Amino acid sequence: MERDLKKLVASMTLEEKAGMCSGADFWNTKSIERLEIPSVMMSDGPHGMRKQEGEADHLGLNESIEAVCFPAACATASSFDVDLIQRMGEILGEECQAEDLSMLLGPAVNIKRSPLCGRNFEYFSEDPYLAGKMAVAYINGVQSWDVGTSIKHFAVNNQEYKRMCVSSEVSERALHEIYLPAFEEAVKESQPKTVMCSYNKINGVFASENEELLTKILREEWGFEGYVVTDWGAINERVKGLKAGVDLEMPSTGDYNDKKIVEAVKNGELDEKVLDRAVERILKVIFSYVDHRHPEAVFDRDKDHEKSVEIETECAVLLENNGVLPLKEEQKIVYIGEFAEKPRYQGGGSSHINSSKVVSALEAAQEKNRNVTYLKGFSSERDEIEAQEVEKAVQAAKEADIAVVFAGLPDAFESESYDRKDMKLPACQNHLIEEVTKVQPNLVVVLHNGSPVETPWAEQTAAILELYLGGQGVGEACDRLLYGQANPSGRLAETFPLRLEDNPSYLSFGGDGKTVDYTEGVYVGYRYYEAKKQPVRWAFGHGLSYTEFKYDNLTVSSEELNDENEIIVEVDVTNIGECAGKEVVQLYVTDKNGTVNRPVKELKGFTKLFLQPRETKKAQMKISARDLSFYSEEIKDWYAPAGTYELLVGHASDDIRVSCEIQFTTKKLLPFHVTGATTIGELLADFRTAAATMELLAPLQQNGENEEEVSEADQQMIQAILEGLPLKSLSIVGVTGEMIEGIIYKLNELC
Amino acid sequence: MERDLKKLVASMTLEEKAGMCSGADFWNTKSIERLEIPSVMMSDGPHGMRKQEGEADHLGLNESIEAVCFPAACATASSFDVDLIQRMGEILGEECQAEDLSMLLGPAVNIKRSPLCGRNFEYFSEDPYLAGKMAVAYINGVQSWDVGTSIKHFAVNNQEYKRMCVSSEVSERALHEIYLPAFEEAVKESQPKTVMCSYNKINGVFASENEELLTKILREEWGFEGYVVTDWGAINERVKGLKAGVDLEMPSTGDYNDKKIVEAVKNGELDEKVLDRAVERILKVIFSYVDHRHPEAVFDRDKDHEKSVEIETECAVLLENNGVLPLKEEQKIVYIGEFAEKPRYQGGGSSHINSSKVVSALEAAQEKNRNVTYLKGFSSERDEIEAQEVEKAVQAAKEADIAVVFAGLPDAFESESYDRKDMKLPACQNHLIEEVTKVQPNLVVVLHNGSPVETPWAEQTAAILELYLGGQGVGEACDRLLYGQANPSGRLAETFPLRLEDNPSYLSFGGDGKTVDYTEGVYVGYRYYEAKKQPVRWAFGHGLSYTEFKYDNLTVSSEELNDENEIIVEVDVTNIGECAGKEVVQLYVTDKNGTVNRPVKELKGFTKLFLQPRETKKAQMKISARDLSFYSEEIKDWYAPAGTYELLVGHASDDIRVSCEIQFTTKKLLPFHVTGATTIGELLADFRTAAATMELLAPLQQNGENEEEVSEADQQMIQAILEGLPLKSLSIVGVTGEMIEGIIYKLNELC
Repeated sequence: MERDLKKLVASMTLEEKAGMCSGADFWNTKSIERLEIPSVMMSDGPHGMRKQEGEADHLGLNESIEAVCFPAACATASSFDVDLIQRMGEILGEECQAEDLSMLLGPAVNIKRSPLCGRNFEYFSEDPYLAGKMAVAYINGVQSWDVGTSIKHFAVNNQEYKRMCVSSEVSERALHEIYLPAFEEAVKESQPKTVMCSYNKINGVFASENEELLTKILREEWGFEGYVVTDWGAINERVKGLKAGVDLEMPSTGDYNDKKIVEAVKNGELDEKVLDRAVERILKVIFSYVDHRHPEAVFDRDKDHEKSVEIETECAVLLENNGVLPLKEEQKIVYIGEFAEKPRYQGGGSSHINSSKVVSALEAAQEKNRNVTYLKGFSSERDEIEAQEVEKAVQAAKEADIAVVFAGLPDAFESESYDRKDMKLPACQNHLIEEVTKVQPNLVVVLHNGSPVETPWAEQTAAILELYLGGQGVGEACDRLLYGQANPSGRLAETFPLRLEDNPSYLSFGGDGKTVDYTEGVYVGYRYYEAKKQPVRWAFGHGLSYTEFKYDNLTVSSEELNDENEIIVEVDVTNIGECAGKEVVQLYVTDKNGTVNRPVKELKGFTKLFLQPRETKKAQMKISARDLSFYSEEIKDWYAPAGTYELLVGHASDDIRVSCEIQFTTKKLLPFHVTGATTIGELLADFRTAAATMELLAPLQQNGENEEEVSEADQQMIQAILEGLPLKSLSIVGVTGEMIEGIIYKLNELC
Repeated sequence: MERDLKKLVASMTLEEKAGMCSGADFWNTKSIERLEIPSVMMSDGPHGMRKQEGEADHLGLNESIEAVCFPAACATASSFDVDLIQRMGEILGEECQAEDLSMLLGPAVNIKRSPLCGRNFEYFSEDPYLAGKMAVAYINGVQSWDVGTSIKHFAVNNQEYKRMCVSSEVSERALHEIYLPAFEEAVKESQPKTVMCSYNKINGVFASENEELLTKILREEWGFEGYVVTDWGAINERVKGLKAGVDLEMPSTGDYNDKKIVEAVKNGELDEKVLDRAVERILKVIFSYVDHRHPEAVFDRDKDHEKSVEIETECAVLLENNGVLPLKEEQKIVYIGEFAEKPRYQGGGSSHINSSKVVSALEAAQEKNRNVTYLKGFSSERDEIEAQEVEKAVQAAKEADIAVVFAGLPDAFESESYDRKDMKLPACQNHLIEEVTKVQPNLVVVLHNGSPVETPWAEQTAAILELYLGGQGVGEACDRLLYGQANPSGRLAETFPLRLEDNPSYLSFGGDGKTVDYTEGVYVGYRYYEAKKQPVRWAFGHGLSYTEFKYDNLTVSSEELNDENEIIVEVDVTNIGECAGKEVVQLYVTDKNGTVNRPVKELKGFTKLFLQPRETKKAQMKISARDLSFYSEEIKDWYAPAGTYELLVGHASDDIRVSCEIQFTTKKLLPFHVTGATTIGELLADFRTAAATMELLAPLQQNGENEEEVSEADQQMIQAILEGLPLKSLSIVGVTGEMIEGIIYKLNELC
């Protein structure tokens, strides 16, 4: 059904239009009966629906209908599997159609700047490329059922502390290279129906009033076609926000702000066309749902539960394994820790799902009659254990063939709304694990957490399996992975540092209450650890399998890349182990041109291959100019210097298996304006001025040649001085001010 | 002789006045015969005079007269001895009077942001407090002879790379806390006759055009009374510079810029009063020298050489000693490495002295008929050694009782004008040292370098003595220290990190060619390593002695400090060893109020005590409000929150022996303006609004109490949300926009 939205908007009164720009209540848009504009409902997400029929809230406190809790983004990103995430999106889309939800508020793509951010579990990665690819898959999945998404939180919202007022102070370069690309990729590749602006300020301007972000970048540069909705309560000054590009205010604030809009139009402060534009955008999204209902949609909770198990199975990351895993049926196993019985599988806050069913790892094992005994040991809800429980656990571990400790972070340790204070597991858990390592070398630790924890006992354990917050299917997925019914194939979407202090944001995270300075710039996550040669516990991209993979025959479709073409990168991957398994082939790019201040390498491609034993497949990835580029603040655009780049392909960021070099040429020219402050070195380095500068220097250097022999140190000094000498300071070597003026004029003519 | 300078200025022509604002040539000011204004000469410094009578230059390339080379600032700062440095200043002042030099260009107080800065050897410390105290002592010493000084390089010039054009991008807080205090202390406590502005830009503005720095801060805030001179060639636009506060341009640039000044006055662009002011300042300093000549002054090179030996003896830092030092007369010793014969004792560039006499450690030993043999091994000038030399050295080391390797950085490795590429010693030296450690456990390494080096072999050696660039007396000082004729008493004025990568500026040092971002903020040196809990090789303040000291009875004159009073801190220090020695008692302050983003501790006092065996002396230091304060960008002033502070007293930054707490009260009030973005947490934390906010919250919280029991996680979340909730967002909990407006109005009335 084609609708003439412009005509519809034209038929609305000023008051109706203003009213359309805020919700009817907590979850619904306003209806206008006389114009047959229906109210539509939205729900919190992103890894399941939180449809509230009773008292509403945005914090996961009140009831919502029974739904299926899929793995949180910390887990799904670890799958490195875009097809999987798209399928998950499709399931969620069908569920929404079945429940008449027009929109699921997700995905959340903020970058994990610090392991402490309380909401990290909802976010994908420390890497913008990976986060972007995951977001595209999720959005395409959900929207394939004509249900809207709301990519969030736009932008630079990387902590919970003071998130409603803090100003994230970030360089333009880090903004474009780290904090925006996941949104950019999602908008360009999947057109989310809406973008949710965040609560915080960015460089002093509220996200909800940030015209640069909401209009210039989001719409004009990226081509966003949907509407912008506030995070719940994120509006500051309504009219300013509307002008900046915020279309829908949520939730309802009565008619307080609607009146302000009306007033502003009436007194000429606000151009009515700006309002019309917002209303049209909102109506377009509403009708894109209303006009595309799917009566065939079914919300089959049992079927979707099984899907959630399958998805989590692809997400869990095997961090360590000395061969103790997979467990064997005949082994005598003891499960220790209440998480075995009561897994932590989701985080607190707006993403909290009223789960239809939860099967614990212990129940899964019991269902299969595995040779497993269980000891609670410590609580899954607080940092609490009794001395005699430790003793019992140690004794049981000693008597078993293998002990599996189910560890993790209690609910109160990480949640929306507040950040963690440290990166530690509860002390009781570390204590118990350390005691068990003393008596049982075959110790497996299974982790339930939304963000990295310190694992001081890592080197004393036989295996570590990271489940993250794995959704309601986590227990069954765990069982399948531990017993080898499934082969772990997740890879870390974030670095596990050895200690919190090693994190690049350690000294600035949280900020001073008013601002938080992103002092590390683009050096976030592995970009920092690699540049600082800082040892980490587990690197970005790391993850083990029950089999092994070999890399051969790295080829590129061309060794020459330019501004327009694309290079296809291929590599043969062979499963050289005894069981089927999946490998995540990762492609990183390195600038070999000595460009200052660039990360050592950056992820620019990945693909996941399923391989039978001895099977070989070709992994294929693509590289274009943008993948080589950094964001130049000087030209306010992406820029890659011409020259050599290295393509690194391998199993993890710290496990590169094959590599090759390519050459890049570009027609982009950095502007060059010569002033008194321009140095000889800069003039010699630019092809436009190099020759003229050599000429200029000739008489000065001849002078030098007549002198007696100069020492190595003095030569080096003279060279350094010359390179760093601004034209204005040629006066020191006797060039007059008038001559300098002439030189500057002449050189500028060449640029 | 009282002079009426205003009258003198009034009698000058416009052209004469403009001419007075630039040099006559490289080293002299202009004379005006008709007005009996003489030309005076200045000379590079700071650790000796570089009076040039022939061809002039600012880079240490051409000849200067024979003079005495004292230890460079890297060494003198390590003395932690203000009396010693003042005496050194006095010697230099007398030398200048004897040679008719009106001014010595020093001291250089830039902060050691990175070990790589090529000019670090000329700078005092990574700590602004220590650098300030050293500068005061030096200036008071030199100026006691009515010879001027020129404290440099003002400001934020912490690298050589592109120093003539790079912009140091630094936060206002780091500027005031780290990069300015040494200048501030020197101006307030010793009134240097001149301040030398640096080449670089600060936050985009050339130092030579920086009115904020040269006028507002330097003169108006600190009360500077002398004149500002450009670093040689640092002028950019002359008239702009004059207006900003640059008085004298050096060296002469012909009459190019003088003419511009004349022109600007004539066309009304420049107020002639600004010119008059500059001329008066320059004349005042010229006559303060001319009218206070000291005919009794003598430049006795031999006497001053002996002083240079004595000073260096107080500066060298004993980094490690397992008891092998001091050496004993009867031991068979081998000296290895050409530095034993040709010590590196000064750096390259403008501070380079034509030394009157250099005695090497080998010559000093030979003079005393010590049981020492010598093997060149490696060159002191380049990274070069032959395999057979290594073998010979290893053999000789094996046969001796003790081997002493004289290591260090060749001239070409560190100098004014360029920075080091890494923090390593020449590979040949590391190789030789490592080979010797394999055969000789009694290995002593003696270091000659201007800035920290990596010492991968440190744990395999018996002792390490850091001589720094110790001046022409370094060899004799080394001999006295090695053989126990003198007891080492230097302490590190900078941290020795384990690896260059550990340094806080590692990812930003040097910058991108146009700017260098001081991303570490105030976390420079030990402020960073302590906050990040980063292990280091040797901490700030570290240094061993041949005896040991005990600390007792820390007392404070009052436990209560306020904005006006001062607390006297005393501690008993006892020499509990067998020989006389000197202890540097160090006082650090810690803010215990949970103020965010403050270094763990900061040096705020030190004193050096000479103690006979079993002697006890009382060390006395003072603390005032400023010592507890950080620089608040909000109020643009120093601010210390009321509350508890800890005073830490000890032997080194990582070796605190005694501590106590004090209470601080203040009348300073941070301004508080309530807006929609003000959070409940902020309102509750401020005594002006706390009560009213509690009242405001009461009805909202009562609501909450009626609900069923809430989990720990939910409670924590509600608490966090409330604290972080801006007033504008009270709409989420049902407060209307009109009510919020009223609340803001009422709260502001309380502030």
